[in-house]
Amino acid sequence: MQFTDIIEKKADGKELSTEEIRFMIRGYTDGVIPDYQMASMCMAIRQCGMTARESTDLTIAMMHSGDVADLSDLPGIKLDKHSTGGVGDTTTLVVAPLVAACGGTVAKMSGRGLGHTGGTLDKLEAIPGTDVELSMERFCEIVRTIGVAVIGQSENLVPADKKMYALRDVTATVRSIPLIASSIMSKKLASGANAIVLDVKTGSGAFMRRQDEAEELARLMVDIGTMAGRKVRAAITNMNQPLGMAIGNALEVKEAVELLSGNIPENDPLFEVCMVLGANMLELGGLARSKEEAEAKLREKIYSGDGLRRLHWMIDMQGGDASYLDPDRIEELVAVRRRIAVPAPRDGYVTGMQTEGLGIAARLLGAGRETKGQAIDPAVGLVMQVRCGYHVDAGDPLAVLYVNDERNLDEAEAMVRTSVFIEDDYRQPEPMVLGVIE
Amino acid sequence: MQFTDIIEKKADGKELSTEEIRFMIRGYTDGVIPDYQMASMCMAIRQCGMTARESTDLTIAMMHSGDVADLSDLPGIKLDKHSTGGVGDTTTLVVAPLVAACGGTVAKMSGRGLGHTGGTLDKLEAIPGTDVELSMERFCEIVRTIGVAVIGQSENLVPADKKMYALRDVTATVRSIPLIASSIMSKKLASGANAIVLDVKTGSGAFMRRQDEAEELARLMVDIGTMAGRKVRAAITNMNQPLGMAIGNALEVKEAVELLSGNIPENDPLFEVCMVLGANMLELGGLARSKEEAEAKLREKIYSGDGLRRLHWMIDMQGGDASYLDPDRIEELVAVRRRIAVPAPRDGYVTGMQTEGLGIAARLLGAGRETKGQAIDPAVGLVMQVRCGYHVDAGDPLAVLYVNDERNLDEAEAMVRTSVFIEDDYRQPEPMVLGVIE
Repeated sequence: MQFTDIIEKKADGKELSTEEIRFMIRGYTDGVIPDYQMASMCMAIRQCGMTARESTDLTIAMMHSGDVADLSDLPGIKLDKHSTGGVGDTTTLVVAPLVAACGGTVAKMSGRGLGHTGGTLDKLEAIPGTDVELSMERFCEIVRTIGVAVIGQSENLVPADKKMYALRDVTATVRSIPLIASSIMSKKLASGANAIVLDVKTGSGAFMRRQDEAEELARLMVDIGTMAGRKVRAAITNMNQPLGMAIGNALEVKEAVELLSGNIPENDPLFEVCMVLGANMLELGGLARSKEEAEAKLREKIYSGDGLRRLHWMIDMQGGDASYLDPDRIEELVAVRRRIAVPAPRDGYVTGMQTEGLGIAARLLGAGRETKGQAIDPAVGLVMQVRCGYHVDAGDPLAVLYVNDERNLDEAEAMVRTSVFIEDDYRQPEPMVLGVIE
Repeated sequence: MQFTDIIEKKADGKELSTEEIRFMIRGYTDGVIPDYQMASMCMAIRQCGMTARESTDLTIAMMHSGDVADLSDLPGIKLDKHSTGGVGDTTTLVVAPLVAACGGTVAKMSGRGLGHTGGTLDKLEAIPGTDVELSMERFCEIVRTIGVAVIGQSENLVPADKKMYALRDVTATVRSIPLIASSIMSKKLASGANAIVLDVKTGSGAFMRRQDEAEELARLMVDIGTMAGRKVRAAITNMNQPLGMAIGNALEVKEAVELLSGNIPENDPLFEVCMVLGANMLELGGLARSKEEAEAKLREKIYSGDGLRRLHWMIDMQGGDASYLDPDRIEELVAVRRRIAVPAPRDGYVTGMQTEGLGIAARLLGAGRETKGQAIDPAVGLVMQVRCGYHVDAGDPLAVLYVNDERNLDEAEAMVRTSVFIEDDYRQPEPMVLGVIE
């Protein structure tokens, strides 16, 4: 098999065989296929696309390039969730313990934040002592005991994806739905769950700016997962404003605790998205027969305090000091040198936000990282004071910045100010949940 | 300027600016842009195409990556011809001296054969002593004296093309009309001629198998040349059978001498194509006002022997022993150990040929090279005994092989036998000249 012939075939718009796709991933992972050939192939895929069958073959070939977690010793249906990366998205810290409290088995492998988006591991590490690099044995032991644990992905999880992603990043081949889908799904499949609920974000703070693209990606990921023998559903959710009010690691932990304490109204966007994701996990896990039953169970676990207790246990078993989650101590996690309000420059209605800009503002304050391995400050970030549809008077705070290092303060302030659009006329805010693909 | 943004722009189907194209070629030639980024860009160009303006900018940027020949000291309009690579195509050895004999200035830089196609330099070197690596000074001196000389391209002619071609060859990005056109035209422009006649081959022995693709390539090259301030015409010619009867270096020299001696009929395909190319060169050079006048002049130079004399002078001034071109000595150039006829396997009409197969048969006998730098045997090759439209009886010779090394003899014989199609019913042969684009 000559790899140039395989590239030619794809560039001519033809469908690659399973054998050809395996040859490509094995060859590239082993270093037999050089970067320049793979770059040309990725561009051919970007331009010509891939069928669901090809994308599934690609995903499975990538999955087998490294370690594949074996969760078969754990009881029942292993549930996972995954978001394509958002701003103020603290759903895992809410949904994972809630679903466990309802009897689900949530063995979740998570990632770190990069660019303008946050990552669950960074949020967990904002709670002193929490260890997200447990051994597989300890991880499974915790899940078996309390139904939930969250750890980082193993170093050798899908090495083909690491190598391909680094290449795609510098060859303008990131924007390809089959390549994005196989990158995400190969890691999900290698993480060992039987059922996966995906949260595909769309809008100004998401990787997929357009809803039709987000739907296409969601449908392809559902198809791949189904062909690979998993139960998969995908929610399409709005990222035209931050999901929660808080952007920043400890600030988002605090907001998750607020929600699990029943202090956030049910019509709040974060609440709404958590319910959709949690309900679908319960349904896939066979723990509820309908959306209504699932949502009722989740609500009960919020108002009874069972969900919050489950988060306490999880932090405790992962070595963290769960007392920081108590109302009297949580302020310690978000204690900063200065809190600075960003005033509205004019009267009017909030008609939209450039969500990515708000994520970048938090990163500029030290809440996120631009390149892998960069240190972050868990306490800093910002808390939005407005949502789309709110009315503001000039001078009203749009957001409160939580600041320790003032180096990029001016830039962060300007970023917030220009990322919230204020106009004379009220505009109906867009719905947060745009659909669920089964 | 970020090169990934420029790749993204092309992959989105947008037109690149002159500045962006210059940045790309400068960066790639200097090694600032790595192979994997250029591979991705070449695939984006293959898939999205380029406008004539972009292709011209690309050609000019490539041309300036190395030496540009300055022929301004030579008198009149400097004429060049170029063929996209054929089998049995010895037109340069016929047309260059004929046009010079008509008063034209032909300062031609040529290439070597590769794969199944021959190269003019190899043919010239089949005549003992001929030097094709003259200095520019000596080259211009010969052209000034006798109106014609043929040398190899300078080592530093369009280094960007050498680097890009090597990359395209291993990344399935050869088949892109803008990339092919700019590769050819950058070398033509750098060679310094004012007027260029292109011979774009199409058919089973040509790089462009389909006539519509050949026409598209021809039109783009004419547009590029015109935008770059040159006079350019392109003939589309048929390569569904070898152009001449001879395939092999000395054998093709011999056929060129036969033509220049008036021994080849005017309805012969080689004669016909030589007339079209020569006539267009005379018209572009201002040496004839019409096709008819140009062809009459060329015919006169054949039948008077002036064209053959001009070839003698050229070989002589380039250090070769021109006496080998005399009828009593030319057989020495094609003296081989064995001549073997390949018999027709059945009765019938020759309805078509797989021309590439015939070129490969000659290469298998040692007349050509598979990889750059390989040694060749100037005497060997084959002489076709049939043309499309001929009737043969079983056992009649299809071709005579000229053999020194018998290692690949069986394979070469089989190649000839399977490359000539014989059927019961006569089929009208296709015309040799399919059109001229001005």
